Amino acid sequence: MAVSRFAYVKSFEQPDPLLPNTYIIVRVDGHAFHRLSQEHQFTKPNDERALQLMDHAAKDVMNEFQDVILAFGESDEYSFLFRRSATVHKRRHAKILSIVTSVFTSSYVFNWPKYLSETPLKYAPTFDARVVLYPSSQEVRDYFSWRQADTHVNNLYNTAFWALVQQGGETTVQAHQTLKGTMSKEKNEILYSRFEINYNKLPDRHRKGSILVREQIASAQGHNKPSTEIVLLHCDIIKDDFWQARPYLLQ
Amino acid sequence: MAVSRFAYVKSFEQPDPLLPNTYIIVRVDGHAFHRLSQEHQFTKPNDERALQLMDHAAKDVMNEFQDVILAFGESDEYSFLFRRSATVHKRRHAKILSIVTSVFTSSYVFNWPKYLSETPLKYAPTFDARVVLYPSSQEVRDYFSWRQADTHVNNLYNTAFWALVQQGGETTVQAHQTLKGTMSKEKNEILYSRFEINYNKLPDRHRKGSILVREQIASAQGHNKPSTEIVLLHCDIIKDDFWQARPYLLQ
Amino acid sequence: MAVSRFAYVKSFEQPDPLLPNTYIIVRVDGHAFHRLSQEHQFTKPNDERALQLMDHAAKDVMNEFQDVILAFGESDEYSFLFRRSATVHKRRHAKILSIVTSVFTSSYVFNWPKYLSETPLKYAPTFDARVVLYPSSQEVRDYFSWRQADTHVNNLYNTAFWALVQQGGETTVQAHQTLKGTMSKEKNEILYSRFEINYNKLPDRHRKGSILVREQIASAQGHNKPSTEIVLLHCDIIKDDFWQARPYLLQ
Amino acid sequence: MAVSRFAYVKSFEQPDPLLPNTYIIVRVDGHAFHRLSQEHQFTKPNDERALQLMDHAAKDVMNEFQDVILAFGESDEYSFLFRRSATVHKRRHAKILSIVTSVFTSSYVFNWPKYLSETPLKYAPTFDARVVLYPSSQEVRDYFSWRQADTHVNNLYNTAFWALVQQGGETTVQAHQTLKGTMSKEKNEILYSRFEINYNKLPDRHRKGSILVREQIASAQGHNKPSTEIVLLHCDIIKDDFWQARPYLLQ
Repeated sequence: MAVSRFAYVKSFEQPDPLLPNTYIIVRVDGHAFHRLSQEHQFTKPNDERALQLMDHAAKDVMNEFQDVILAFGESDEYSFLFRRSATVHKRRHAKILSIVTSVFTSSYVFNWPKYLSETPLKYAPTFDARVVLYPSSQEVRDYFSWRQADTHVNNLYNTAFWALVQQGGETTVQAHQTLKGTMSKEKNEILYSRFEINYNKLPDRHRKGSILVREQIASAQGHNKPSTEIVLLHCDIIKDDFWQARPYLLQ
Repeated sequence: MAVSRFAYVKSFEQPDPLLPNTYIIVRVDGHAFHRLSQEHQFTKPNDERALQLMDHAAKDVMNEFQDVILAFGESDEYSFLFRRSATVHKRRHAKILSIVTSVFTSSYVFNWPKYLSETPLKYAPTFDARVVLYPSSQEVRDYFSWRQADTHVNNLYNTAFWALVQQGGETTVQAHQTLKGTMSKEKNEILYSRFEINYNKLPDRHRKGSILVREQIASAQGHNKPSTEIVLLHCDIIKDDFWQARPYLLQ
Repeated sequence: MAVSRFAYVKSFEQPDPLLPNTYIIVRVDGHAFHRLSQEHQFTKPNDERALQLMDHAAKDVMNEFQDVILAFGESDEYSFLFRRSATVHKRRHAKILSIVTSVFTSSYVFNWPKYLSETPLKYAPTFDARVVLYPSSQEVRDYFSWRQADTHVNNLYNTAFWALVQQGGETTVQAHQTLKGTMSKEKNEILYSRFEINYNKLPDRHRKGSILVREQIASAQGHNKPSTEIVLLHCDIIKDDFWQARPYLLQ
Repeated sequence: MAVSRFAYVKSFEQPDPLLPNTYIIVRVDGHAFHRLSQEHQFTKPNDERALQLMDHAAKDVMNEFQDVILAFGESDEYSFLFRRSATVHKRRHAKILSIVTSVFTSSYVFNWPKYLSETPLKYAPTFDARVVLYPSSQEVRDYFSWRQADTHVNNLYNTAFWALVQQGGETTVQAHQTLKGTMSKEKNEILYSRFEINYNKLPDRHRKGSILVREQIASAQGHNKPSTEIVLLHCDIIKDDFWQARPYLLQ
């Protein structure tokens, strides 16, 4: 049985290198996580255990890809930033996309029992993912601002929504109605006046999302390549401070 | 915090529809499975449990995508054929690639204990994947012939190799040396004369790989759309018989 | 001055092979030809000389690319069909697209005086172009049917429109009004009853467009590769006859 | 004849937007210009008239595309830089590539008699073209340095080569042999000692190539958008001066 006779089919594989020297962002998104969170009774509005599991899976992606220097997660999504000089897997699109997806998914399932030990996984959870290229550092900053602003908007809404339902006794339909058209200020007011919740004192993780950053550690001897470690933060990444303290992120 | 100010970054997402009316094949491959099989003591040359687990994961991909009508697996790889008329996820490349990868990976990790209960998973196994398009049915047939011919060549080699090592007392270096440059006929001869192994009587699964096919079942009432079920086979798919019996596969 | 220091910029050129074994169609379109036809007083509704010039330019594209076996032209556009097995320029997208565009444009300008000798070209006319891939022969047939049906619809409209203006004394605004919402039958009726024009007896070139086909000529000795010649036709290519007489077109 | 029945073929046209906010460079190259220059007796090593014709065609491309702010030409090639913010034709790849190619080709043929009036064009000359994207300004500078360094290397070689043939009485084979392995310094030395040619005093156009730049002109009223004009230069673009004087080029 000659393999060679059929091997011409390999020539249909198209080359797919990503444009050199652009920032690569891969965003992983939970696929049908509304159902997953219901079937496994995730705490609302935020399930601390599930968020920690997301962070764990993201850290595994960063351990697989040394070129990922920053990641941002909220809810059931995570974004990974590859340094612009990355040449891993010859920057082949399908290779990078599929491995990030697989590492994230595998870690999520594998580590589930560590974080949700009392809630056995009922079925295999899945994610989808996409690759986006950014030519300049400004766009990368704006990308992460976009995701963190989204985190804020969603979390404020969800916090108010579930307060109305869980503490205010409203139905979900009523709660949506109550919040319809409200501005941030009004949601803050509802939380404070009706439920004595000071939104700004809620956990940073819920309000800011999770930032995983590959920090450079000054080595003892100045001439060595700096070693790095992955650090989990829940801080503001919209303002300049975070980036100014880490100029190597956007080099 | 205005999400809208940053939302322009979304415009960098490039459209990626796959050419309409072409056959889509997604091939999933084990990533660093040499190490995985060693760390978890997979039986050589074939680990029945690990192969069954692969089949399970592949079946889950077919349950996720009704357009996958045929799949072929061997060792740590699986290929999925989408019908040419498929419009799932608007044929978006990244969507299809990432979900297939994620479903396969997730199912593999989730179902591991069902098949390798006595060998707990030590770490999260991963896969990579790629998409290839084929414009005509002949190429699709040749693609699957290519993979099955590869299965045969690899399995014959591995069967002889491990017989030399496990039963013949050769080191792995010696076994490679013994087989170097041998033709199929000679490997068969080594197996038969030295180890009384009749290669052609070995399990079909090992020699032919796994075929998952979405079979059409005639419905009771002739006018209904036929219902389907996914069937696992280990038969020849290089010759015409398999395809002639299932004309709907290449329609 | 070291060229080599800067040569890395070449690595930003992305590979762009067209999917193998698909039919390649390149369609060239006049860019701003409304103005061109006005400034050079093209005869309405059809300028025989300008159409012949288009055919000439198209023939030059076929002389450049032996793989182009069929071309169809109407008005200021021309479509070129490459045989599916074509490997010219390694099927590189930009190479094929730019050369077809350039040959067509260059021939159009170069040969203008041969066809419109009494109307010197006032400025450089231009075209744009695109590449479309088709996986199966049915789509190729439908593509050419699409263009020829378009020719018919446009030509019938334009013939009626200019008859109303040139012979009926209507303004262009009135003529558009007269034809608004009319079916083919009514346009035929207007032409016949008011202007004694039998649409079906008008020149085939105007009603059917131009077909350039690379015909196979039986060679004297049966064993030789058949030689070919490019033939200009103005016949129906929607029905089966044209294709059945030339099975090699869609092989 | 229903156009609509066939219109589905249009759905096979794939979207092809170029990544936003990257610098677009389109390079046009003479196709088989070795033959063209021979058949039309171009002066060697440089034909002033043919170079001026190239500049004319390039200027027409810049008149068509307001987003082209810089162009560089040498021999039978020309490179065009689109500002990174360009959104012309929605940045569609085929549209931009084909129109640049067509405008350049058309202008070259149309304007030929203005520059080579005594040498009628014998046949239609053609070009090919490609698009390359650059994410950062450094790469754009290096791209143009690459082309100008190439101009220098080629022109020095050609000048020495044709001096040896035209004035030194060598055959072309001998001249190639004489120059084989020589460094720039040695070629300069051959020119000076044997032919009294001071290479550095040769025309800038030949040594530096042609730069077409869209210069900003300060308007009378300070608040208006600056108007621009296209200026032809033959200066160094490798060093910083050219770019520092025109910061708007790489903005």
